[in-house]
Amino acid sequence: MNSRLKFLLLNLFLFFALLTKAQEKITVGEKQTLFSTVLNEKREIWIHLPKTYNDTGINPAKYPVIYLLDGEINFEYYAGMSDFLAKPPYAEMPECIVVGIKNTERTRDLTPTKSGKKSPVNSNVVLFGDSGGSENFVRFIQEELKPFISKNYRTQDYSVLVGHSFGGLFAVNVLLTHPEYFNAYVANDPSLWWDNKVLISRTKDYLEKNKNFPAHKFLYVAQADNEEQNKNWNSDMTQAIEEFKEIIEKNGSLNYKHHFYENEVHGTVSYPGNYDAVKFIFKGFRTDIKKLSKNPQLLEEEYKRFSEKTGTNFLPSETYLNVVLKFMKSNDFKESEKYFNDLKHKLYPKK
Amino acid sequence: MNSRLKFLLLNLFLFFALLTKAQEKITVGEKQTLFSTVLNEKREIWIHLPKTYNDTGINPAKYPVIYLLDGEINFEYYAGMSDFLAKPPYAEMPECIVVGIKNTERTRDLTPTKSGKKSPVNSNVVLFGDSGGSENFVRFIQEELKPFISKNYRTQDYSVLVGHSFGGLFAVNVLLTHPEYFNAYVANDPSLWWDNKVLISRTKDYLEKNKNFPAHKFLYVAQADNEEQNKNWNSDMTQAIEEFKEIIEKNGSLNYKHHFYENEVHGTVSYPGNYDAVKFIFKGFRTDIKKLSKNPQLLEEEYKRFSEKTGTNFLPSETYLNVVLKFMKSNDFKESEKYFNDLKHKLYPKK
Repeated sequence: MNSRLKFLLLNLFLFFALLTKAQEKITVGEKQTLFSTVLNEKREIWIHLPKTYNDTGINPAKYPVIYLLDGEINFEYYAGMSDFLAKPPYAEMPECIVVGIKNTERTRDLTPTKSGKKSPVNSNVVLFGDSGGSENFVRFIQEELKPFISKNYRTQDYSVLVGHSFGGLFAVNVLLTHPEYFNAYVANDPSLWWDNKVLISRTKDYLEKNKNFPAHKFLYVAQADNEEQNKNWNSDMTQAIEEFKEIIEKNGSLNYKHHFYENEVHGTVSYPGNYDAVKFIFKGFRTDIKKLSKNPQLLEEEYKRFSEKTGTNFLPSETYLNVVLKFMKSNDFKESEKYFNDLKHKLYPKK
Repeated sequence: MNSRLKFLLLNLFLFFALLTKAQEKITVGEKQTLFSTVLNEKREIWIHLPKTYNDTGINPAKYPVIYLLDGEINFEYYAGMSDFLAKPPYAEMPECIVVGIKNTERTRDLTPTKSGKKSPVNSNVVLFGDSGGSENFVRFIQEELKPFISKNYRTQDYSVLVGHSFGGLFAVNVLLTHPEYFNAYVANDPSLWWDNKVLISRTKDYLEKNKNFPAHKFLYVAQADNEEQNKNWNSDMTQAIEEFKEIIEKNGSLNYKHHFYENEVHGTVSYPGNYDAVKFIFKGFRTDIKKLSKNPQLLEEEYKRFSEKTGTNFLPSETYLNVVLKFMKSNDFKESEKYFNDLKHKLYPKK
C-alpha cells in the first residue's frame, strides 16, 4: 500500500469513527416510515421501546402498545413518562411500546365529518375545509400500522389510543364506531363541539342501538379550564364535553373517568391528562413489594384481578419478579424468595 | 489503486455509512463526562438542549439551566416536559437547558450529615454508612459543573435545582447553606427526617440568624401520600415535611408552595411535582397571544412584571416573537404586526 493511500484510508477511518462516536446521545425512540395504501401517502412513525426490550438477561417479552396521536408534540415526554411509571418497585403500569403518529394533514385525518367553521378571529376565513377523513385514518391504523408494529416488534394483544383536541374527538369517534379496535381510549379536551356536536348524536345513537359498550373498555377524558377559550375562542368546547359526560355516566357500561383540570388550558392539559389516564387505565396493576414478603401469593391474586378487570391476561414480568426476588434476598425473607423463584421458573422457563 | 484496496476502501465506507445512518433516532440529550477534582472521580452528565438551540433562523439565544438530581431516573420525561411546556403559543416557561446529574454514590452526595439508620425491614442491617458528603457535592456543582455548562453551552444567569427524596433533602440544604447558588429549588418528598431532622434545626437556625431568605428565591415542595410508608416504612417522613412547612409559611419571606398529592406515593410524586413546580416557579411567564392583538404593549409589561418577580431580566424570545408575528399577520392585525416587528428588530437586531 503506498503511503498516500494509507493516509487516505486512515483519514476516512478517523472521519467516520468520529461521526459515529462523537457525543453519546440519549435516545427515546426511532423513526420508521411506512407507505399507507389507504391514505396513499408515506407516514412517519416514532417508536419507543421500553427499557427492558433488548435486555438479554431475560426472556424476550411482549409489550402492550400505546398509539399516540400528534406524535411530534407528545412523544418525548410520553415515552419518558411511560418508562418512569413502569419502573419497579413502584410500577403503576406495565412497560409499553409507544407508537407516535406524526401528522401530515391533521384536520383531514382526525375529523369524522366534512364541516367548515368561520375563524373566530376573522370571520372572512373559513377553517377546516379539508375535514372528514377519520374513517380512512382509523383504517390506516388498524389495517396497516398495527400489523406493521406487530410484525416488527414484540407486542402483547392490548392497545391504547391517545389523542388531544381533534385527536380526542378522533379517539371518542373510534370508540363509537369501532370499539373493538382498542382496549382503552384517552381523550384530552376532545373537540366534541365538532360539526354541531355530531359525536353527541353518534353517542346517543350508539347507546340506543347497542344499549351498552363492550365489556372491559376504558375511556379517560381530561377537560381543561378553557375559561379564556370560553369567552373568546371555542365557547362550545366545554359544553359539549359536559353533555357527553352526562350521557356516558348515565349509561354506566364503560370504565369511564372524567377529570376537570382547573389549572390547565387547552394546550397544556394533555401532560397531566396523559399521566392520570394511564393511572386510571392501569389501576390495580401496582403491587406492594413489602406486602409480598409475608404474603407471596398476593402477587398472582392481584394480577388475576387486574386481568379480569381489563379482559386481558397480564402476568408479572420477569423483570418485576427479579426485583421482587432481590428484595426478598436482601431482606432475608427466605420462604418468599423460594416462592418467587419457583414462580419465575414456572412463568419464564429457561430456554 | 489496486483492486483489493479499492474493495477494502469501499467496504469500510459502506460499513460506517450504515453505522451512521441505520435507524434515525429520536434523541433528547447527550452525555458528557467531566472529572471532578472536588470529588476525585469522573461524573457523567446528561444534557438536554431546547428545540431552538441550534435553530439557524434566529440569533443564538441564551437559556436558563435546570439542574436535575437522579438524572438517570428523571431526565427523559423532564426533557420532554420542559420542551412541551415551553412550546409557544401556550408556553408556561422559557425554553431551558436541562442538566441531569447521574449518581455514583447517591447517599454520600445527597446527605448533609453522617448518620446511620437501622433497616426498617431487618434491624440487624445499618443503612447509610457512607453519608454526609453533600457539601462536597454542592461544591462540585457550583465550582466545576456550572462553569463547565456555561463554557460549553449558551446559558442565561438563572438556574433551578431539582431533587427527590434524598435529592429533595439536598435541595433544601443548599437553600439553607448557599441560597445564592440557585434562583429556585424543587424538593419532591424531601427526606427531612434525616438525622433526627437536622434540616429542621438548620432552618430554625438560619431564620434566627438571617430573619429572611434572600429576595426572589423560590421553593416548591411536593409531598406524597405515603400512607403505606407511614405505617411500615418511614413514619417520620410526613411529619418532618409538615414541620418544615409550618416554619417556612410562618416566616413568609420565601416564594414558597407546598402541595400534598393524595394519589401519589414516594416513588411517583416527582412526575406531577416537577410539572407543578415549573408552573409555580414560572407563573406569570405565559402571555395570551390573543390579548396581544389589541394590546401589543402588554407583552413587555408582563415580561417586566415577571422579571421583577424573579429578580432576573427575562425578555420575549425571538422564537416567541416570530409566533406572535405570524399570528398577527394571518389574522390581519396590521398595527400589532408592525409593533412586534419593530420590537423584534429592537431586541434582536440582525447581525
